Amino acid sequence: MIILGIDPGSRKTGFGCIEKSGKSLKLLGQGVIQLNAKNSMDQRLLELSMGLEKLIKEYGPSILAIEKAFVKNNIQSALRLGETRGAIMVSGARHSLSVVEYSPAEVKKSVAGNGRADKEQLAKMVRLLCGARDLEFETLDASDAISIAVCHALSSGRSPLSAPRRGGKLSRALGLS
Amino acid sequence: MIILGIDPGSRKTGFGCIEKSGKSLKLLGQGVIQLNAKNSMDQRLLELSMGLEKLIKEYGPSILAIEKAFVKNNIQSALRLGETRGAIMVSGARHSLSVVEYSPAEVKKSVAGNGRADKEQLAKMVRLLCGARDLEFETLDASDAISIAVCHALSSGRSPLSAPRRGGKLSRALGLS
Repeated sequence: MIILGIDPGSRKTGFGCIEKSGKSLKLLGQGVIQLNAKNSMDQRLLELSMGLEKLIKEYGPSILAIEKAFVKNNIQSALRLGETRGAIMVSGARHSLSVVEYSPAEVKKSVAGNGRADKEQLAKMVRLLCGARDLEFETLDASDAISIAVCHALSSGRSPLSAPRRGGKLSRALGLS
Repeated sequence: MIILGIDPGSRKTGFGCIEKSGKSLKLLGQGVIQLNAKNSMDQRLLELSMGLEKLIKEYGPSILAIEKAFVKNNIQSALRLGETRGAIMVSGARHSLSVVEYSPAEVKKSVAGNGRADKEQLAKMVRLLCGARDLEFETLDASDAISIAVCHALSSGRSPLSAPRRGGKLSRALGLS
């Protein structure tokens, strides 16, 4: 199963693509789709949609895992984030990917065993789960996107740490929570 | 110039397509793209995107005129409306349409000469401008979408009532404002 994780943003959208085979996870690629802030919103969404298509063709994912929207008190930001999410979801659906959503707390709980885990704890677990201790994250957006993809891998069927509870135990054993 | 006006909604998206040639406006089609509320959001956005593509192929517009988002105090509604708008904008941009936006007040001012015109005043002016006194609007969403398309026709270049101010005079002369 190949999972494309997406951290949506109207200027920078992070991506991380992982492959789950049996019990192992492998990072296939990561990065950021950078949008030209000088362009009109429809042109930015077109760039985003074409960037995603390229990734879908390159990695052949069957799942698009996207961060659930979280906006506090700002209607304009919510509208803008919604527009970005709409373009991403429709790109996934057009290519017959299953689109799934996870909140930041769900990602933290599933990956690090603790809904309030910090970036560092999350990063350690992602490295451990992907079997790449020296894995460098290209940007914060990419690292968030990889975590979302890993969250889906852990949440679906058998996985190295299939249920968040087991992840919790392991992360506690590792002193991460 | 063929203009596809869109009134976005996550359950029902209204459309109205008009042709402007010289000084005359003609309504080519109107209706609603109804989305299945039981489907997941990504599937709804896919239905919407495919519905729009069908309209673009049928009418061959060069402009997609969309209502500017207006949401008061509800973050979830803003996100949802944003998602719908994102899917619409990216559909337009994919087919090389120019995407333009007008607020409800801009539409009312441009079409009826008064930013606070009511539905009835707007409907009268749309009928008059399209030269179709017996024009029936299929639904409220479709009528809003036609008004947005007419607004763009009036706002771009020479038109029957090229500037909002002139529209204002005419609508006043007709007792509409």
